[in-house]
Amino acid sequence: MPSIQLKTPSASYEIVIASGLVKTLPARLKKLKAGKPFRTFLVTSPEIWGLWGKQVIAAFGKESPTVLFLPAGETHKRLRTLESLLEQMAAAGADRDALLVAFGGGVVGDVTGFLAAIYMRGVAYVQVPTTLLAQVDSSIGGKTGVNLAAGKNLVGSFHHPLAVLADTDLLNTLPAAELRAGLQESIKAGIIRDPKLFGYLENNADAVLGRDAKALTHVVAASVRVKADVVANDERESGLRMILNYGHTLGHAIEAATGYKQLLHGEAVGWGSIAATRLGLMRGMIGKDEADRIIRLILRYGPLRSFKATAARLVDLTSSDKKKRSGTLSFVLPAKIGEAVIVRDVTREEMLAVAEWTLELVREQGAAAKQKQKRK
Amino acid sequence: MPSIQLKTPSASYEIVIASGLVKTLPARLKKLKAGKPFRTFLVTSPEIWGLWGKQVIAAFGKESPTVLFLPAGETHKRLRTLESLLEQMAAAGADRDALLVAFGGGVVGDVTGFLAAIYMRGVAYVQVPTTLLAQVDSSIGGKTGVNLAAGKNLVGSFHHPLAVLADTDLLNTLPAAELRAGLQESIKAGIIRDPKLFGYLENNADAVLGRDAKALTHVVAASVRVKADVVANDERESGLRMILNYGHTLGHAIEAATGYKQLLHGEAVGWGSIAATRLGLMRGMIGKDEADRIIRLILRYGPLRSFKATAARLVDLTSSDKKKRSGTLSFVLPAKIGEAVIVRDVTREEMLAVAEWTLELVREQGAAAKQKQKRK
Ligand SMILES: NC(=O)c1ccc[n+]([C@@H]2O[C@H](COP(=O)([O-])OP(=O)(O)OC[C@H]3O[C@@H](n4cnc5c(N)ncnc54)[C@H](O)[C@@H]3O)[C@@H](O)[C@H]2O)c1
Ligand SMILES: NC(=O)c1ccc[n+]([C@@H]2O[C@H](COP(=O)([O-])OP(=O)(O)OC[C@H]3O[C@@H](n4cnc5c(N)ncnc54)[C@H](O)[C@@H]3O)[C@@H](O)[C@H]2O)c1
Repeated sequence: MPSIQLKTPSASYEIVIASGLVKTLPARLKKLKAGKPFRTFLVTSPEIWGLWGKQVIAAFGKESPTVLFLPAGETHKRLRTLESLLEQMAAAGADRDALLVAFGGGVVGDVTGFLAAIYMRGVAYVQVPTTLLAQVDSSIGGKTGVNLAAGKNLVGSFHHPLAVLADTDLLNTLPAAELRAGLQESIKAGIIRDPKLFGYLENNADAVLGRDAKALTHVVAASVRVKADVVANDERESGLRMILNYGHTLGHAIEAATGYKQLLHGEAVGWGSIAATRLGLMRGMIGKDEADRIIRLILRYGPLRSFKATAARLVDLTSSDKKKRSGTLSFVLPAKIGEAVIVRDVTREEMLAVAEWTLELVREQGAAAKQKQKRK
Repeated sequence: MPSIQLKTPSASYEIVIASGLVKTLPARLKKLKAGKPFRTFLVTSPEIWGLWGKQVIAAFGKESPTVLFLPAGETHKRLRTLESLLEQMAAAGADRDALLVAFGGGVVGDVTGFLAAIYMRGVAYVQVPTTLLAQVDSSIGGKTGVNLAAGKNLVGSFHHPLAVLADTDLLNTLPAAELRAGLQESIKAGIIRDPKLFGYLENNADAVLGRDAKALTHVVAASVRVKADVVANDERESGLRMILNYGHTLGHAIEAATGYKQLLHGEAVGWGSIAATRLGLMRGMIGKDEADRIIRLILRYGPLRSFKATAARLVDLTSSDKKKRSGTLSFVLPAKIGEAVIVRDVTREEMLAVAEWTLELVREQGAAAKQKQKRK
């Protein structure tokens, strides 16, 4: 059973990746609290609970947790939702010995983590991620928070969980598009830090996309290792951790340009990764062969949905991204498969050229997808 | 100029107490940021700004800060207010280099500190407390937060300021009742930890209540030293810091019983301190002479407004106080002037007896106050 220990200056915890973890959840929670009294509050959304609630309840037996719900979807990742959950906890008499369990995707995880960070100035929580994206990315590293009207993830806390328990069985009910979108983050992990993971994803695409348990466990564990390693070296995102933004700079601009509705986050990141690779190639930082391999792998785990935008709009949105710091825009580019570098001197002209090129590919892929559908 | 260095495991910062500090505020902020670029956001309420805004603006000269407002009063210490401030910051393009200044009483300080704790997962802030309570208590120690409908201060973060700059001139515009209520926290500091401060308050009541600059600076500085010392030894309130709750257990119950409207916080704490002293006396933990001195001093800094409640109701509310931990109620009692102890075995019967006795004193004092008013 793969288990990764994440050590940061402020916390140390285990990330377990295995099938069947839900069954052992109550015992694991007890062990994490090491004999101290606690009361479990499980936060989830009705959709996920509909699929997995019975199994969870069965695992807890007589000691069933208090279940709190938030509606599914990014639109509910807001302070309003948080306040309602906080009031529910208070009404239920939750004390500092409350133990929260985030049972869901990245939205549930981010909201629950933040809830745990601020209820009575901080209680403990455990992540049980149920999407691929949450298992390989959002549940790890202690970033929690919600959105403002003015932008995504603008409010939050650093608050690490007591543990991350990633049960790969949970992925069996995940819609295919969500699985594929999440896998873009695994591809990213390969590109920036792990050539072996990259190779595995190249050679085992059918097994991974077919949800073969062994293949999924391998990919999730390897991706987690990359993220945990980066976070351990730079908990507060002052340097290295920025490389996790590979593909995200333009990705966020694409999400903003399409109103956060047309594409899944991972799909936008896929396009953003392609753009970053193209920029690396234009700058002669990465060779043609490797750049092609990256783009091919990203598309292999597609289709990435197409969208409409102008290059100028994307570039404008990029510069207003919150990753910008005092005027200069940081960009993560591939140096080779398994290595990324941060550059700060990307010009508007370069950005425009890359955006144009990427949008052309978006159109091509969109047209090809339409053809394919017609043929069916 | 009294200056106290507060060192905790997670932060180290200066608390300066002096008259005329507002004039040097811009220079001090620059020094605190040590050459790094930053943008100042000052948070205050319209009432306070009406009294002091001109002076602050004059001090900043051309580099005037962005001023954000929250309405005065405890009812606005809520997530709603916070969200509006967060959106205003985002709309103004605030980045991680934002520096918040809390310019107000405890409400402004608690909200601004929490705002700083969660905007982009944490930006820096400075406390400029404008009430006596804020100068001696709420601005120090890094506790920030807001209220829920279900209870006070149930949501928040530990987030220390870069510095606390307590300008005693600001107290000149404070309503007399607010000044006196705040001084109850100074009396508390004397009782639990500083017999010299207690003596000073006994011997200089006229000067302190008359807002003599030297007397106020002395009292504020001594009170700050007590709080800073306790916080330095127990940042996260796992033990010692609990003694700061002296008078607060019953105080909170009184506030709850009167709907947080009739009494100022400090007045409720005054009555709570009297009750704790009585309990100490009943248990033979403190002598009659010292108990009398304590009660006399608290009343000297009154009048504490009277209120109506039954002993049973107060005791019930006490047990639902959030300081309660897994069933046992902790109570801070005086051992002598300058020393407090935490006890955990107070029975309901004792509590009822003490509440009855205190309510009798409340009635007496209320009647006396009425007589006095009639005679005028
Ligand atoms: N904290 C971080 O470090 C971090 C990192 C990356 C992303 N994020 C955040 O993560 C969020 C995206 O996470 P996400 O992609 O998991 O989205 P999500 O949480 O919205 O889940 C996607 C969809 O899948 C459904 N779902 C979840 N688990 C399921 C299951 N087992 N079976 C069937 N359906 C299931 C959900 O109900 C939802 O409709 C964003 O808000 C993003 O900002 C956070
Ligand atoms: N964080 C902590 O550790 C801590 C400790 C104790 C209390 N608190 C909190 O502090 C709050 C109470 O603080 P408070 O007593 O300062 O109340 P407050 O902030 O409501 O201020 C009291 C009143 O005085 C006015 N005021 C403020 N400064 C003034 C000035 N210079 N001149 C004239 N009027 C002025 C305000 O507008 C308000 O009407 C509570 O919310 C309490 O929970 C926090």
